[in-house]
Amino acid sequence: MTLILAINAGSSSLKLSLYHRRPSLPSLHLILNASISNIQSSDSQFNLSIDSRHFTDSIEAKDHSSAFAYFIGTIDKHPSIDKISIRYACHRIVHGGTYTNPVRIDSQSYAHIEHLSDLAPLHNGAALSVIQACHVHLPNAVPMAFFDSTFHQTIPPHIYSYAINQDIAVERGLRKYGFHGLSYAYILRAISEYLNKPRETLNLIILHLGSGASACAVRRGVSLDTSMGLTPLAGLPGATRSGSVDPSLIFHYTNKAGRITHDPSLVGDIGVTEAEDILNRKSGWKAISGSSNFKDIVENATHQGPPENLGENLHNLAFHLFLDRILNYIGAYHLKLGARVDALVFAGGIGEQSPGLRQAIGDAVQCLQYQRIDSQRNRTVTFESSSVSDIGEGQADEGRILVCKTDEQFEMAQECALDENLW
Amino acid sequence: MTLILAINAGSSSLKLSLYHRRPSLPSLHLILNASISNIQSSDSQFNLSIDSRHFTDSIEAKDHSSAFAYFIGTIDKHPSIDKISIRYACHRIVHGGTYTNPVRIDSQSYAHIEHLSDLAPLHNGAALSVIQACHVHLPNAVPMAFFDSTFHQTIPPHIYSYAINQDIAVERGLRKYGFHGLSYAYILRAISEYLNKPRETLNLIILHLGSGASACAVRRGVSLDTSMGLTPLAGLPGATRSGSVDPSLIFHYTNKAGRITHDPSLVGDIGVTEAEDILNRKSGWKAISGSSNFKDIVENATHQGPPENLGENLHNLAFHLFLDRILNYIGAYHLKLGARVDALVFAGGIGEQSPGLRQAIGDAVQCLQYQRIDSQRNRTVTFESSSVSDIGEGQADEGRILVCKTDEQFEMAQECALDENLW
Repeated sequence: MTLILAINAGSSSLKLSLYHRRPSLPSLHLILNASISNIQSSDSQFNLSIDSRHFTDSIEAKDHSSAFAYFIGTIDKHPSIDKISIRYACHRIVHGGTYTNPVRIDSQSYAHIEHLSDLAPLHNGAALSVIQACHVHLPNAVPMAFFDSTFHQTIPPHIYSYAINQDIAVERGLRKYGFHGLSYAYILRAISEYLNKPRETLNLIILHLGSGASACAVRRGVSLDTSMGLTPLAGLPGATRSGSVDPSLIFHYTNKAGRITHDPSLVGDIGVTEAEDILNRKSGWKAISGSSNFKDIVENATHQGPPENLGENLHNLAFHLFLDRILNYIGAYHLKLGARVDALVFAGGIGEQSPGLRQAIGDAVQCLQYQRIDSQRNRTVTFESSSVSDIGEGQADEGRILVCKTDEQFEMAQECALDENLW
Repeated sequence: MTLILAINAGSSSLKLSLYHRRPSLPSLHLILNASISNIQSSDSQFNLSIDSRHFTDSIEAKDHSSAFAYFIGTIDKHPSIDKISIRYACHRIVHGGTYTNPVRIDSQSYAHIEHLSDLAPLHNGAALSVIQACHVHLPNAVPMAFFDSTFHQTIPPHIYSYAINQDIAVERGLRKYGFHGLSYAYILRAISEYLNKPRETLNLIILHLGSGASACAVRRGVSLDTSMGLTPLAGLPGATRSGSVDPSLIFHYTNKAGRITHDPSLVGDIGVTEAEDILNRKSGWKAISGSSNFKDIVENATHQGPPENLGENLHNLAFHLFLDRILNYIGAYHLKLGARVDALVFAGGIGEQSPGLRQAIGDAVQCLQYQRIDSQRNRTVTFESSSVSDIGEGQADEGRILVCKTDEQFEMAQECALDENLW
C-alpha cells in the first residue's frame, strides 16, 4: 500500500489529506481529511473525517509543529494506517519564486524556500515549521514542495514586469509571481473534465474568493494574468488585506501628524514589517465593517445598490467595494481573453458559499453575454457528484457560469501520483 | 476689454493662455499662448504664439517664479495687451482634496492648497510659487484655483474608498481623488458637442495619455472611476512613474540587502520622500527603456507582439507593458459602463501623437464591438476644424473611436467665463 500525505499550512490552520495511490484509475483514493484551526490560540480545534465518520476535538496547538505532532499521534491510533507506507509528504508553499515545478525538499531547496518566505510572511513560515516537524515524525516520507506561484510562471514578461528599473527588478526578483496556483490548477483540471474540453483549448476567468482573494485569466489552458503580485497583498482586498492601494498610501497612513504631510519632522520612516502588518492584517473588509466573516457582510449589506453615503452602512460599503474590485478584474480579463471566455468560475470559501455575491456578479456580467444565473440553482449549489456545479441558465458553448469546490491537497497528491519520475 | 489668464504649472514647465472674454458666443477669444519648458535647467525655452506668429527664445528660468516674470516682461512689450484688463488669473492645481468647485484664492484657501501639496509633490508646489508671483505682477487680477481632482468628486464611496480602516481613512483623507480632471472636463464638453449628444447621456472611456497617464470612466456625463488615486502615482505607468505596483514592492526595492529579506538588520526603514522619489521620478518607461519619450519607444519596439523574453527588447517591453495596463482599464470600465460606451477617446500628448499605440488598442477592443480604426485617418489625425478627430470606420451610435486635443487652460478660462457668480 502506497500512501501520499498532502499538507496545507495556512497562517493559523493546518489541513491534511491522506491518499492511497492506486495503479488503476482514478489514481487516488482518499483515506482521511484532517484539519486543525485557530493554531496559536487557546481554543484550537481538531477535525478528522475517516471512513465516513467525523470527529472533533478541542486541543491545544501552540504552533504548527505541535498541531502536526497531534495529527501524527491520532493516526498512530488507527490500526488501518501504516505511517511507514507514506512515501511522499507534499507541502503547499505559497511563494516559490520562479520555481516552475514541484521540488524535492533537500537542504538546498529548503534554504531557498526559507529565503522566499520574506515575500509571503503570512504563509511560508508556517509551512517551513511543518516541513521540519514532518522530517522528525515521518523520516521515511520524501518531502516535496508544491508552490502556489508555479501555475503563474506562464505569465509573459510585459504582464509580470512592473514599470520600474529593470536591473533592480531582476537583481531582487521584483515581479508579479501570483498565488493560489494549486487551487487554479485543480480548478482548470476539473473544469476541463466537466466541460469535456481539452485544457489547452480553455479560456477561463477564475475567481478564488476567500479571506485571501485573487482572480486569474487562463488562456488556452495556462495562466495569462492574475491579480496578486510580488506578494499576496496586491490585487483584490481580503478579510484583513487591503489589496492594491496607491503605493504612497502606507506612508500617509503611518505618519505621526494625524494628517497628510511631507514635513520630515512628522512623517517618520516605516519599515516593511510595519507596512505589511497594517496592509496584510489590519485592513480588508474586517477594517471596514468590523467583521472578517464575509457571510455577515452579505447578510447585513442592504443590497439596494451601492452606498451613496460612506457612513450609512459599512457592511454595504465592504460588499460593494469588493464587488467593484472583482468586476474590474473580470472586465480586464474578459478583454485580455479577446471576449472568448468558456466560463467564469467561482471558487474559494466565499466563491462557493456566497450566492448573494455570485448573483451580483452574474447580473453585472450579463452585458458581456455571459449566461444568466439560475437563481434557484445559485442558492442551492451542491457538489455531490462532481466538484463543479453549473449555475448558468442553458448550456451555451461560451460564457458559462460555474462554481468549483477546489482542493489544494488533492491537487498536490494528484500531481505527485501522476509524476512518473517519482515512482 | 476683459481678459482671463489661464496658468498651468507642470513640474518643470509653465503654460499660459490669455483670452478675451466676449459678451457674445463663443465667449472666449484666444489672444496668445505661451510656454516655458525645462524650468530649473540651463536651457529653458520660451515659446509664444500671438497674432498667428510664433516666437522662440532660449532663456534662463531658474524657477517657476522667474519663468512667470519673464512672461509678464514679454507681454509688457506688446502694446495691444493691457495687463490691467486681466480680471481673473486661473491657476491649475493638481490636488484639490474634496473641493467640488473652483475657489477664489485667499489666505485660507491658499493654506489649504499648500497643505494638499503633500499629496501631489510633483505639481502643487510649482503652482503655489506661480500664485505668489502672479500676486506680485498682476495685483489686480483675481486669483482663482481650478483643481484636477474636482471632476472626480462624483465617484461613489465604494469606488473611491480603499479597503483600510475607515476611521483613519476619513481622518487623514486617504481615498481616491483622481486627477487630469480639467482635461477630462474639456474632453467631455468637446465630445458632447462633436457627437451632438447632451453631456448627461454620455458614457465614455477617456484615456489621457502623456508622461503622466490616466483613464477615466464617464457615466451619464460624470466621472464614475479613474485610474489615479490618493496621489497621481496610482494607476497607469508614466514616463518616470511606476503606476500601481504591489504595495509591498517599495520596501523590497530599498532594502540594503540587495535581495528580498525581512531581516531587520538589512531591510531598513524608508520614508515617503524617498519612496515617492523612486516611484514618481525613477520608474516608468524611462526606467525600463532608458527613454522618457514615448515616440522613441514606439519606433524602437518591434511590434511583432509582446516579448517572450524580458531582455530581448526593452522598448518592446515598455510598449507592451503600457498597452497591457491601458487595456486592463478599458476592460474594467467597459464592464462598469454596462458595455454601453458611446466612445473611447484618446487624449494627451501620447494619445494625440501615437498612432501605433492607438492602433494596437483599437485592434484589441474590436472584440468588444468598438468601431474598427481607419488606419489612414489614424496616421493623419488633424485638429483643424475641431478639437475632436474621428478615427473609427463608420459612424455607429456606440463604440466610436475618437481623438481629442485637450486644453486645460481653455477649460479653466471657459469655466471662469461662464460662471455668472464671477461677473
